[in-house]
Amino acid sequence: MDTTTLAARRERALGAGAPLFYDRPLHIVRGEGVHLFDESGRRYVDMYNNVPCVGHANRHVVEAMSRQQATLNVHSRYLHEGIVALAERLAALHGPAIESVIFSCSGTEANEVALRMARGATGKSGIVCTNATYHGNSEAVGKMTRLGADQNSAADVRAIPFPEMFRPLVPGASESDLAEAYLERLRGAIRSLEDDGVGFAGLIVCPIFANEGLPDVPHGFMARAAETVRAAGGFLIADEVQAGYCRTGRWWGYEGAGFTPDIVVTGKPMGNGLPLAATAASKALVDGFRARTRYFNTFASSPLQAAVGMAVLDVIEREGLAENVTRVGASLKAALIQRKKTCAAIGDVRGLGLFIGLEMVRGGSALEPDSDRAIEVVNELKDRGFLTSNAGAFRNVVKIRPPLVFGQRDADEFLTAFDATIAEING
Amino acid sequence: MDTTTLAARRERALGAGAPLFYDRPLHIVRGEGVHLFDESGRRYVDMYNNVPCVGHANRHVVEAMSRQQATLNVHSRYLHEGIVALAERLAALHGPAIESVIFSCSGTEANEVALRMARGATGKSGIVCTNATYHGNSEAVGKMTRLGADQNSAADVRAIPFPEMFRPLVPGASESDLAEAYLERLRGAIRSLEDDGVGFAGLIVCPIFANEGLPDVPHGFMARAAETVRAAGGFLIADEVQAGYCRTGRWWGYEGAGFTPDIVVTGKPMGNGLPLAATAASKALVDGFRARTRYFNTFASSPLQAAVGMAVLDVIEREGLAENVTRVGASLKAALIQRKKTCAAIGDVRGLGLFIGLEMVRGGSALEPDSDRAIEVVNELKDRGFLTSNAGAFRNVVKIRPPLVFGQRDADEFLTAFDATIAEING
Repeated sequence: MDTTTLAARRERALGAGAPLFYDRPLHIVRGEGVHLFDESGRRYVDMYNNVPCVGHANRHVVEAMSRQQATLNVHSRYLHEGIVALAERLAALHGPAIESVIFSCSGTEANEVALRMARGATGKSGIVCTNATYHGNSEAVGKMTRLGADQNSAADVRAIPFPEMFRPLVPGASESDLAEAYLERLRGAIRSLEDDGVGFAGLIVCPIFANEGLPDVPHGFMARAAETVRAAGGFLIADEVQAGYCRTGRWWGYEGAGFTPDIVVTGKPMGNGLPLAATAASKALVDGFRARTRYFNTFASSPLQAAVGMAVLDVIEREGLAENVTRVGASLKAALIQRKKTCAAIGDVRGLGLFIGLEMVRGGSALEPDSDRAIEVVNELKDRGFLTSNAGAFRNVVKIRPPLVFGQRDADEFLTAFDATIAEING
Repeated sequence: MDTTTLAARRERALGAGAPLFYDRPLHIVRGEGVHLFDESGRRYVDMYNNVPCVGHANRHVVEAMSRQQATLNVHSRYLHEGIVALAERLAALHGPAIESVIFSCSGTEANEVALRMARGATGKSGIVCTNATYHGNSEAVGKMTRLGADQNSAADVRAIPFPEMFRPLVPGASESDLAEAYLERLRGAIRSLEDDGVGFAGLIVCPIFANEGLPDVPHGFMARAAETVRAAGGFLIADEVQAGYCRTGRWWGYEGAGFTPDIVVTGKPMGNGLPLAATAASKALVDGFRARTRYFNTFASSPLQAAVGMAVLDVIEREGLAENVTRVGASLKAALIQRKKTCAAIGDVRGLGLFIGLEMVRGGSALEPDSDRAIEVVNELKDRGFLTSNAGAFRNVVKIRPPLVFGQRDADEFLTAFDATIAEING
């Protein structure tokens, strides 16, 4: 079926505005490892990825899924060892404060659980988030989407500026003073919730501030933010949906960010495409949540989620993907930093592991975001066979995020295409 | 692993209070067709079911899942024919007013979409639901859970008594007067929302009132409720998560209930265990929702959801399961009505197709609910190898809901076990 006909059918069946990537959308029919293939057989390198983290059509995952679905896939009100073993294995990937796990089907659902857990345990409802974040699509979680400074319309949510070095809240301030300035905003948000009688339940952050554009964060900010949150009686929620699962070269984004969360939310990469998400915390927090809510999630904690979740962890561990991410990611980032020197449109190169952001700026000013240029780069790279997207508070950050199995040769191929793209832009 | 050890591990890993069925929980390790098997190899007939509607380990579904996961499973911002075809096929199972579909991962997520769709389209936020219902576990959807008459704490939700003939709102009234009495409650709830300045966005019901205990509804109530809702400018949301997919012998619960919804929510049976749910409506409603929200759901609308969703529909159609449900369900219900005549503890036998409820009452009064007896029956049946559960506003309804592939021989086996259970109770 040709792409135009399919797009028209899609518009009728899914409604107008169902999101599509690229000026000329791709019709993808097959995936294998780091590659996706369109209907004409053309090969693309998946550098958007996010979900199928151990590679498209990963054989170990396919086999685990097939075997389990052919054996048993039922709701969780019978005892089954699979989901217990997955919960134990997940908890063991954190420090001792994380003991128990509530499974769900999406990052949205897992963040719903996290918010209700923090709110229930504190008896307060106020949540602080950052002002260019996204944590999910439900009514409660959606209140945290793209909250600008003047858009705090939800009585129980306050947005603070996300911490960053590139466009600092206090230009010219030392890193320590800058951290303090951001902390003061956090304290102010907490005070505002308390003054309004809402009270403070917790702070939620993506530890690498992925939707904000992967900013370099003033040293010490997150550790001190964690202290501030706890001193105020709140809980710190780490939304590891994008940051976790070795994306940065370590299991969790919070490890690189230098803090320890009370509640950890995971999602996207957990099932390599099977809907699977989790909220992990101390047993006391989980017990309290369960007692208050009698939470049950029909499709979650199933033998299928368990088998596929285990298979993804197996592949990450057996294939040493954390090390691969660290090695290839560092090499790719260093190469992109080199490109920045000769391309004025690249204002900054940021990120960790296999999640790198290129901040595109106008030639005239290093601080003036250029989202048109970011979109142009993304579309050019697509035409050259490399699938990326754009993100960030100004949508001007080219987001480079290949699967964890992305190798050095893949990185070299990408750099060749990237150089051609940059040459065209510069030309 | 023995059941006690596994239960203790589970309590640590998933937290205390993760729901389990039965006084002595079952450790289930395998499923096949209508059967589940515990770790000792003992066979049980799954008469709770709900999700794996075409049978456990259904081969056609397993093959579709395996093949698709080995081919492509990626997010929906590329064009892919699979999900378009599934949306078209689902829409075609409704009347012409249902044109477009938004996929998600759970009934909760699909009901979130439905509520936001109705609220966005009307510009009002007030929702009317019934007072012993359950539509999901998120903050917004959870506001509708078990709302008693005095528990209308959510400003934008009003609960009305669910319509029923067994414990009628007006004892002794004619069926027509009774329908009118329930309608007056609906009108009152709408007025209350308008008087409070909240406004009326819509009514949400399970068309067979499954959580309420499958009541027989006064004739004409639902059709007139639909008129009332539309006259007041609201939308009628049918939550077909339990009622749909031929559970009643027809594709949708609303067909038997005699009304046409504006928004249809489906979930549980759609993927035979794969997380898959949908919100379907007119293209205008779906377009409006998408324009207002830019809704995106990472795991939803995937090629995997599409392939598995199609496989389930294939099996239902190819194997003539609607006809099977009608035939076996009618025979089973008739047999249970026979048992009611000699067992005073059975106050009522209700339901349609393969979803039957036995209302357990105290011997002294046909109207006094006996939840202890319902739980006893459920546990007794379990010990005899038949898995049911209890439901209803008083938790006194034994819920009998085998897979759509449940045959007459399975029904006969069940009746033998049921007779033994009743004999023990009567004895």
